[in-house]
Amino acid sequence: MNSCYLPDIQAKEPKIQIQLNRVGVTNVKKLITLFDNNESISLYPTFDLFVDLPSSRKGANLSRNIEALDRIIEIYKDNNNYKLDHLCNNIAIQLLNSHEYAKTSEVNMKCEYVINQKSPSSNIKNQKFIDLFFTSIAEKKYNSIETTNIIGVKVIGMTACPCAQSMILDYSKKYLLNLGIDESIISNIIKNIPMATHNQRGQGIISIKIKNEKYNIDIKSLVKVIENSMSSNIYEILKRADEKIVVENAHKNPKFVEDCVRTMAENIVTAFPNLPDDAIISIKQINEESIHKHNAYAEIIDSFGSIKSKI
Amino acid sequence: MNSCYLPDIQAKEPKIQIQLNRVGVTNVKKLITLFDNNESISLYPTFDLFVDLPSSRKGANLSRNIEALDRIIEIYKDNNNYKLDHLCNNIAIQLLNSHEYAKTSEVNMKCEYVINQKSPSSNIKNQKFIDLFFTSIAEKKYNSIETTNIIGVKVIGMTACPCAQSMILDYSKKYLLNLGIDESIISNIIKNIPMATHNQRGQGIISIKIKNEKYNIDIKSLVKVIENSMSSNIYEILKRADEKIVVENAHKNPKFVEDCVRTMAENIVTAFPNLPDDAIISIKQINEESIHKHNAYAEIIDSFGSIKSKI
Amino acid sequence: MNSCYLPDIQAKEPKIQIQLNRVGVTNVKKLITLFDNNESISLYPTFDLFVDLPSSRKGANLSRNIEALDRIIEIYKDNNNYKLDHLCNNIAIQLLNSHEYAKTSEVNMKCEYVINQKSPSSNIKNQKFIDLFFTSIAEKKYNSIETTNIIGVKVIGMTACPCAQSMILDYSKKYLLNLGIDESIISNIIKNIPMATHNQRGQGIISIKIKNEKYNIDIKSLVKVIENSMSSNIYEILKRADEKIVVENAHKNPKFVEDCVRTMAENIVTAFPNLPDDAIISIKQINEESIHKHNAYAEIIDSFGSIKSKI
Amino acid sequence: MNSCYLPDIQAKEPKIQIQLNRVGVTNVKKLITLFDNNESISLYPTFDLFVDLPSSRKGANLSRNIEALDRIIEIYKDNNNYKLDHLCNNIAIQLLNSHEYAKTSEVNMKCEYVINQKSPSSNIKNQKFIDLFFTSIAEKKYNSIETTNIIGVKVIGMTACPCAQSMILDYSKKYLLNLGIDESIISNIIKNIPMATHNQRGQGIISIKIKNEKYNIDIKSLVKVIENSMSSNIYEILKRADEKIVVENAHKNPKFVEDCVRTMAENIVTAFPNLPDDAIISIKQINEESIHKHNAYAEIIDSFGSIKSKI
Repeated sequence: MNSCYLPDIQAKEPKIQIQLNRVGVTNVKKLITLFDNNESISLYPTFDLFVDLPSSRKGANLSRNIEALDRIIEIYKDNNNYKLDHLCNNIAIQLLNSHEYAKTSEVNMKCEYVINQKSPSSNIKNQKFIDLFFTSIAEKKYNSIETTNIIGVKVIGMTACPCAQSMILDYSKKYLLNLGIDESIISNIIKNIPMATHNQRGQGIISIKIKNEKYNIDIKSLVKVIENSMSSNIYEILKRADEKIVVENAHKNPKFVEDCVRTMAENIVTAFPNLPDDAIISIKQINEESIHKHNAYAEIIDSFGSIKSKI
Repeated sequence: MNSCYLPDIQAKEPKIQIQLNRVGVTNVKKLITLFDNNESISLYPTFDLFVDLPSSRKGANLSRNIEALDRIIEIYKDNNNYKLDHLCNNIAIQLLNSHEYAKTSEVNMKCEYVINQKSPSSNIKNQKFIDLFFTSIAEKKYNSIETTNIIGVKVIGMTACPCAQSMILDYSKKYLLNLGIDESIISNIIKNIPMATHNQRGQGIISIKIKNEKYNIDIKSLVKVIENSMSSNIYEILKRADEKIVVENAHKNPKFVEDCVRTMAENIVTAFPNLPDDAIISIKQINEESIHKHNAYAEIIDSFGSIKSKI
Repeated sequence: MNSCYLPDIQAKEPKIQIQLNRVGVTNVKKLITLFDNNESISLYPTFDLFVDLPSSRKGANLSRNIEALDRIIEIYKDNNNYKLDHLCNNIAIQLLNSHEYAKTSEVNMKCEYVINQKSPSSNIKNQKFIDLFFTSIAEKKYNSIETTNIIGVKVIGMTACPCAQSMILDYSKKYLLNLGIDESIISNIIKNIPMATHNQRGQGIISIKIKNEKYNIDIKSLVKVIENSMSSNIYEILKRADEKIVVENAHKNPKFVEDCVRTMAENIVTAFPNLPDDAIISIKQINEESIHKHNAYAEIIDSFGSIKSKI
Repeated sequence: MNSCYLPDIQAKEPKIQIQLNRVGVTNVKKLITLFDNNESISLYPTFDLFVDLPSSRKGANLSRNIEALDRIIEIYKDNNNYKLDHLCNNIAIQLLNSHEYAKTSEVNMKCEYVINQKSPSSNIKNQKFIDLFFTSIAEKKYNSIETTNIIGVKVIGMTACPCAQSMILDYSKKYLLNLGIDESIISNIIKNIPMATHNQRGQGIISIKIKNEKYNIDIKSLVKVIENSMSSNIYEILKRADEKIVVENAHKNPKFVEDCVRTMAENIVTAFPNLPDDAIISIKQINEESIHKHNAYAEIIDSFGSIKSKI
């Protein structure tokens, strides 16, 4: 059977002639293999793939979106010159090239990604699962294609509340004073014994939006920025001595949801000093409060230049 | 115990002095009772509640967010002058008033909402579940508060694919011609017998963003706009005769994901002719393709004035 | 159009004649209004509705499942003799009666349910959201119908880890000894100052399976059993003094995931002493560990008689 | 710091001495690499890992669960003698060996798995995502360990409704008779032109429970059993000619949710004739009805011997 003779309804003029901003497919799952830091890794990402559609066309040829995706995945497969950071950028360009009627394309990708770490005292190897999300937008401009890329990372850590801890500390000071203990000794006790507070899983999320691939973002550095902005890093395996260290660290480093966001802002300026000033930084923290059923939330969205000027 | 003597850590100066765009609580569940078209209804919405935070303050007083929410819910409870459409607008204003250090507030709310309908032939009463989502933003401007409101609705219906149907139709015409049937009779057959195609659940989603409450959006009219833009409405109870009508209607009215979005654009101009030109209309359709594991998607985001000018 | 003349494909003999255990509909959403403790409440449950199907029948008439559900909901609407506890039992019987070819029916229902509570120091009213789940099975036996009912409740609370706390406590004792503080004073300090540990949201889940409606389960008592088995109850609104109490209570009452389950077992025997010995009790606890990305889990499934004999 | 000196709270006697059926960790994510049909593949499964706990012990050593998992994953890594089918069985045995106080262990694993297929006319390579789920239970019996293994697969396909189609067919016959077309020609038309009906995504799910590894289940054969039991297989990429074939096939092969389950029962007997008679087969079909917001469902749970005797 020859598909050439099948009617091409998509190419017809629509009854209502209005341009569409995004037409495509969502929730496309793929197994992809690529080189990441010179190591072959397999990922199971989910993609959304869009182009815009002119008012004169009834429909987009949606199977081309999957074909464009597959072509880039095939190129990445055995070629260690192609890195994860530019995967979506390359898919967006391929997508634009495969829809001659489109002026912009957009690719969203999200996947789980594993980083190896060691538990803090026993040094046992731990897999750390983080969430990656990427967006790439390609636009036809005169004779060239301009792209904008967003790279995002979500990392789970632990946060301990400074407010509850300060109340426990306040109470403890008074209790120790009543026992007749000397103020200088009390101040040592307070400093060295981790005082109770509520603590919980926190989600730290950073995304960076940059035009035209001017800059490569190292995912592992971005993960470090987030880990170092909560009360403590968390681990898959903790033997007893490890667990003690994690709990001590978290309680010596209590942080509000707001503190986490501000610390991420500071850490990102330190870790990525050469980011372009017009890069848009989005920083979010969601704490799954152990004392409530709801979450605490804080967020900054600002240009890198503006954030840098405030630190 | 007197909370006046407890330390107020939130009010302190933070180490890193940078302003935060959103600080608050997410995933707050509430049972609320209000009057909607003069009838008392109960809803189980989920809220996100944010204010901005100046660089000089370590934290926001998050319990005030729940208290502001509760105050407005209490006012709505027994007072039929307060309608669902302005609930979030009122919560956003209350939220801003309860955080003296904030300049903007934002409220997101989503809930299920039930509309009664009848099956098309047997007239049996059916509950139709739709998803509502609202956002309200309040901003302090000189001596007043300006608000922006988004009202959104998601409705599930049925879409039948025009492309596959046209191929079946093409094949059928040739088959009937080969049987020696007259062309004028064939054209009657083609018109009257519903030709097979793939069909599936489709999600139609419209949101309208308006400044300063200039306009009330009737939810049921918005639901109708979405229902009338797919191949067929769907129902909870369908006896055999009803099922036949739904299948016939869907196949007489095949629609691409793009067609659904364009029809919603047209229908919204007809149903809400007096919307302000600067209202931002977002129209999305997601078809859960029965021939794929992924979805088809189309979207328009444009001002009402611009959409109106193109219809 | 008369549906009597439409073909009844379901009633035909199937090609492969094998009996089916469950045939029906899943994920049916309903808004229902009923009397619960003499108060009219609205719920938004989701239902699964099944019957068995003999080998001689191609299909079940699935629209009857929704009609059976609607009939019972209608009876409950304005009649305060009909209580939530027997809703599913009544739907299961109606379902069995509406499929003359079926010998068993099964109804699953789950919904959110709100209980009012007060924050521990400020006495501010809080809504507490819990999850309810019910299963009812009806079976035709000679001339009667026998039913089995499961009622289940999930409540979120807070758990504090005894293991990490004992390590902090151990360290604190040694530190205080090194400071030259007297052992009897140290033992007072240890007892009165809440020592740090990791703590987190915990989910306590209990279900009770009883034959033939011999016993009514009071939902609020079951919620209390779960609340009292974790380290602390949690609340929607906590002012500073409330937060201090919650943190203190949790740290004075550290519990492993295993301890929570065993305490629920003990508390259920105390709260429901007259449960039939052959009632099957399922008790689960899931702790969303703040030091890990994964959860801790413990579970008992046993007859009430057996549990009672071990307490 | 030496963890030997840290208190072992878990080993203590609990206050409430009652045995627990399951204690462990849930939602443990892992990246694993193994050989599957002599090819190295990477999977991202999620695990639950449990042992039972005697009444005399306060807690289980939960970090050992992750260590047991890691040990088996390490063995699989570079050794092509270890296959996916026995992964959970081996983890369950390792788990039991690492908790000297336990008498049973249980491992649940679920992951996505990719199968390569080709679109039906254009022969373009397609990735097919299926869901795998495994359970293994190990029990200490005298001097040996007995294991029970469940292997399960979920595959998405397409189902077309026979009931709506028969009504359309009925109507079409009458319409063609009224046009004066000959009955024998009508019967040809009816047979050759695909008549409309509602169709949708369907989920076919089969699991097989076998004692003591008596039998290896080939995953790809199990996928085929499910694919061949729905109205049509579905694909990631369909060019126009492919789409026509899928729609035609589905409409020539209409199936109720009940038909799918019975066909799976028949196909499993044909594909796996040597399964032990006491293997427990669970077969489910969930159709995401395009004419409703809810799903249609059918299920058989029976021994292989009993199913075989009925086919």
